[in-house]
Amino acid sequence: MSSSDTLTRLAEVLESRKGAAPDSSYVASLYHKGLNKILEKVGEESVETILAAKDAAISGDNSDVIYETADLWFHSLVMLAALGQHPQAVLDELDRRFGLSGHAEKAARPTTSD
Amino acid sequence: MSSSDTLTRLAEVLESRKGAAPDSSYVASLYHKGLNKILEKVGEESVETILAAKDAAISGDNSDVIYETADLWFHSLVMLAALGQHPQAVLDELDRRFGLSGHAEKAARPTTSD
Amino acid sequence: MSSSDTLTRLAEVLESRKGAAPDSSYVASLYHKGLNKILEKVGEESVETILAAKDAAISGDNSDVIYETADLWFHSLVMLAALGQHPQAVLDELDRRFGLSGHAEKAARPTTSD
Amino acid sequence: MSSSDTLTRLAEVLESRKGAAPDSSYVASLYHKGLNKILEKVGEESVETILAAKDAAISGDNSDVIYETADLWFHSLVMLAALGQHPQAVLDELDRRFGLSGHAEKAARPTTSD
Repeated sequence: MSSSDTLTRLAEVLESRKGAAPDSSYVASLYHKGLNKILEKVGEESVETILAAKDAAISGDNSDVIYETADLWFHSLVMLAALGQHPQAVLDELDRRFGLSGHAEKAARPTTSD
Repeated sequence: MSSSDTLTRLAEVLESRKGAAPDSSYVASLYHKGLNKILEKVGEESVETILAAKDAAISGDNSDVIYETADLWFHSLVMLAALGQHPQAVLDELDRRFGLSGHAEKAARPTTSD
Repeated sequence: MSSSDTLTRLAEVLESRKGAAPDSSYVASLYHKGLNKILEKVGEESVETILAAKDAAISGDNSDVIYETADLWFHSLVMLAALGQHPQAVLDELDRRFGLSGHAEKAARPTTSD
Repeated sequence: MSSSDTLTRLAEVLESRKGAAPDSSYVASLYHKGLNKILEKVGEESVETILAAKDAAISGDNSDVIYETADLWFHSLVMLAALGQHPQAVLDELDRRFGLSGHAEKAARPTTSD
């Protein structure tokens, strides 16, 4: 399955859970707990990703990094859904930068502190 | 352009920058500074995403959230590249969960604290 | 100098900088940039502390952890000042828990997930 | 009770829990789970502090900020204890900067990006 299908299908699932009872699924419970709880999860998974990357750099085993990055992306998708946004907007922004500006532009100029 | 193309093309660009001189691009400078600097950026962009989401929930303007989430995903892609990993592995993990287990499984069972 | 003097004196300095011109000091510039910028620094220093702790656990050299924790506490003091709060309120809360409840209470009961 | 007493007493309690059975207290369970779990908590409490500060700036109620900052400082004390460090080293660093250099020095020069 292409990544486009994965993200689009995941966004569809997240959208479909919005009306569900809080105890019907993990995502439904997150929506019910509200934006702060969702953002706490984004923060937690960011830290777990960072810790997994540090450990991977020593052990050479990247399985936890992949797992935690999936958790991070997943919860950022839940955040986007809670705000009524679609991941395609993020991909469009990356594509815009990549083709035209932003980091791509940055990449073309001599490095400065960021 | 599909999201698959966006992420795959971005991963290719990130791979191609690995041998570049540190001052040739932003990404090359990040690689040169090392994993800690890359992970600091993942952490920073996570916090900026969280702050943007809080502000968006009040203002109704989601443009900063989209921008900061793109920054977060971008730097997590740089992290994956620095560790020799491809974003497809993360998408595969999301697809695996979505189809079979993980959060998808969680979603099927009554909510518990996480 | 006792820690009480250190934190109290630091809080006094932070308070005194509130009316200063943005370009007169680092702290004055932070106040001028606003709460989001201060909170970004709290997040950044948190991540730098975490990375320093991971490195210290391997190298045995804790100097960076001390330095980054000082940065983290410093910027949390700036946050408190920006919100009109004094660090003594945080110390009082720790003391309250330590003597009576909160984590002290938690410490007394069998461990559960947190 | 002075803040010095609070932090020193807390450090003593954290030290005394090091030999305790994992299920004897929350702190003992954290030590047992290891440094990554302690650092995850530092990261989590940092994000919860940031969210509480955003909410406080709107509501004017700072009670959650005080509570979450106490959690953040508490878990950074657990981290220091796990690494065999004492909070006095952090206070000494703050005092050194405050009197002589670091942020105090930064404060004396015209503002630059940080």
